[in-house]
Amino acid sequence: MLDLAADPVDLTAALVDVESVSGSEAHLAALVEQALRALPHLSVDRDGDAVVARTRLGRERRVLLAGHLDTVPIADNLPSRREGDRLLGCGTSDMKSGDAVLLHLAATLPDPAYDLTFVLYDNEEVEAARNGLNRLVRDHRDWLDADLAVLLEPTNGQVEAGCQGTMRVRVTVPGRRAHSARGWLGENAIHAAAPVLATLVRYEARDVDIDGCVYREGLNAVAVAGGVAGNVVPDLCTVTVNFRFAPDRSEADAEQHVRDVFDGWAVEVTDSAPGALPGLTAPAARHFVDAVGVTPVAKYGWTDVARFAQLGIPALNFGPGDPNLAHTREESVETALIGTCTDLLRRYLA
Amino acid sequence: MLDLAADPVDLTAALVDVESVSGSEAHLAALVEQALRALPHLSVDRDGDAVVARTRLGRERRVLLAGHLDTVPIADNLPSRREGDRLLGCGTSDMKSGDAVLLHLAATLPDPAYDLTFVLYDNEEVEAARNGLNRLVRDHRDWLDADLAVLLEPTNGQVEAGCQGTMRVRVTVPGRRAHSARGWLGENAIHAAAPVLATLVRYEARDVDIDGCVYREGLNAVAVAGGVAGNVVPDLCTVTVNFRFAPDRSEADAEQHVRDVFDGWAVEVTDSAPGALPGLTAPAARHFVDAVGVTPVAKYGWTDVARFAQLGIPALNFGPGDPNLAHTREESVETALIGTCTDLLRRYLA
Repeated sequence: MLDLAADPVDLTAALVDVESVSGSEAHLAALVEQALRALPHLSVDRDGDAVVARTRLGRERRVLLAGHLDTVPIADNLPSRREGDRLLGCGTSDMKSGDAVLLHLAATLPDPAYDLTFVLYDNEEVEAARNGLNRLVRDHRDWLDADLAVLLEPTNGQVEAGCQGTMRVRVTVPGRRAHSARGWLGENAIHAAAPVLATLVRYEARDVDIDGCVYREGLNAVAVAGGVAGNVVPDLCTVTVNFRFAPDRSEADAEQHVRDVFDGWAVEVTDSAPGALPGLTAPAARHFVDAVGVTPVAKYGWTDVARFAQLGIPALNFGPGDPNLAHTREESVETALIGTCTDLLRRYLA
Repeated sequence: MLDLAADPVDLTAALVDVESVSGSEAHLAALVEQALRALPHLSVDRDGDAVVARTRLGRERRVLLAGHLDTVPIADNLPSRREGDRLLGCGTSDMKSGDAVLLHLAATLPDPAYDLTFVLYDNEEVEAARNGLNRLVRDHRDWLDADLAVLLEPTNGQVEAGCQGTMRVRVTVPGRRAHSARGWLGENAIHAAAPVLATLVRYEARDVDIDGCVYREGLNAVAVAGGVAGNVVPDLCTVTVNFRFAPDRSEADAEQHVRDVFDGWAVEVTDSAPGALPGLTAPAARHFVDAVGVTPVAKYGWTDVARFAQLGIPALNFGPGDPNLAHTREESVETALIGTCTDLLRRYLA
């Protein structure tokens, strides 16, 4: 039985020591559900390996705290261990320290200033189609109603607001095959891709300030492929480009921009996810920022805050983990930050 | 039993109708050996599926005629069939029509002006290590002694002299990985390849006149590859380049030239084959050209003439097949050209 009222550092270690690689969160979800059901001020629902606990106090506003239960595969880094001022192990940063803060607050704030919703979900580290939060949006949209969502993803104790969108496009450059001994009879598609790469080199990415958060866009080739055989002038070269765009652009705007940049070439969008505005002007968000006393910065990577933004719910990332250590064999978390985050969130929610 | 004295068009059809995809030439080689051994003016040797037949008349000069017995895989194009003025089927152009001319001359020229060597060999259409002529050079160099070699490869009845060399190099462009959401922390290797491609676009290939044959060089990317994952700035991009070079350059010269062109990038030679000078100033070659009355042109593709050139034997390509139809499902040969080539060679050799 998990002791949610214990020191959040100890609770982090307890969560880390229950393996929960994506797809095998059932045991940890059961432990979390059992511990939450033991709390009389919360009503608890479960869907698959996602657990949602809510207060029903009739407060004017509702704040949702969310964290995923799954981790990337173990890399010889379990069980957890303390080393100086850090706790080491798979999931310490991403994001069982955040889950521990969340669960500790769930247990120890029976009379908060807002109604609270605690969401712990499965399969965040794998493809979007399996994402537990995605499933809740589809099947239990009402469980997620809130005026602000705080994701306890690793941010090193920073408040990271909104997130950038991401879009991948395939730029196709055609040619005409020929034997390379008589190359002048063909048109070399790889040579013809030179101006596509030159366009990427020349591209000047925007810095966009929204609500005081500066989003820095980027346009990068992430793959290039071409070639038929060692003696053939190739008739096709493809360049896959990833556009990370500030949340003042919609996906449609982003697509149009990429098409303008690669005007004259065939451009096909292969996947896309919208950004999320920082939403810092929403009263609940403003109140949160004031309470934690940390200046928000832009989130560059894509996170589940975008799902909340699509539901019209302002969302922030704020957690004790270190994003640079996420998914590494040496994953660890600074134990002091677990306490700091807990205290700052408590000050806001109490 | 093959009838070598028959019309070379009929002999072509007979050879085509014996399947001999590379590696399975044994049956055809046995038929050829049997037919040649029946000719009292020839002494015959066999090594694997290569057959060599020679006159021993004590003439001042010796001329070697060569053809490979193997074909690319059948493509629903056997048995052969006549259609108007063409014979259709796998190997009609490349190069059983040439083999038929060669075998017909072997049977019908008992008293030639030169000593003659007839070479029919295996595995020309596959990797060099399996090439039957390569094996003869290694194990029976003396069987190949000659003052001139004529390969009856498809040339549409043209005389094609010498051949260009070919070299493949891999140009490696490094970078530094980063998450594509924070691309500015890395260095994109694909972007860094832009000047490599621009260099290829700008490259001005030489036209080189040797003995009246114009060799047209070419530098072509034949492959490009790069990319780690859809969200990673890649740290490596490779461009594979094929240099077709005129036979006035040695392989060492060609390599130095490519290194000069891609100065500043890592260049690795992955494979290489030397060219062959046209050798038209050699008396036997000059006599051949005068006799057939066709102005020689440069051979762009690499053929086994280069092996003879390495042995110091001038070599030419001259055959009835159409090189543009070689290796195609629609492979065919113009029947009139089979007769023309036979007559021109007979005029030279008689």
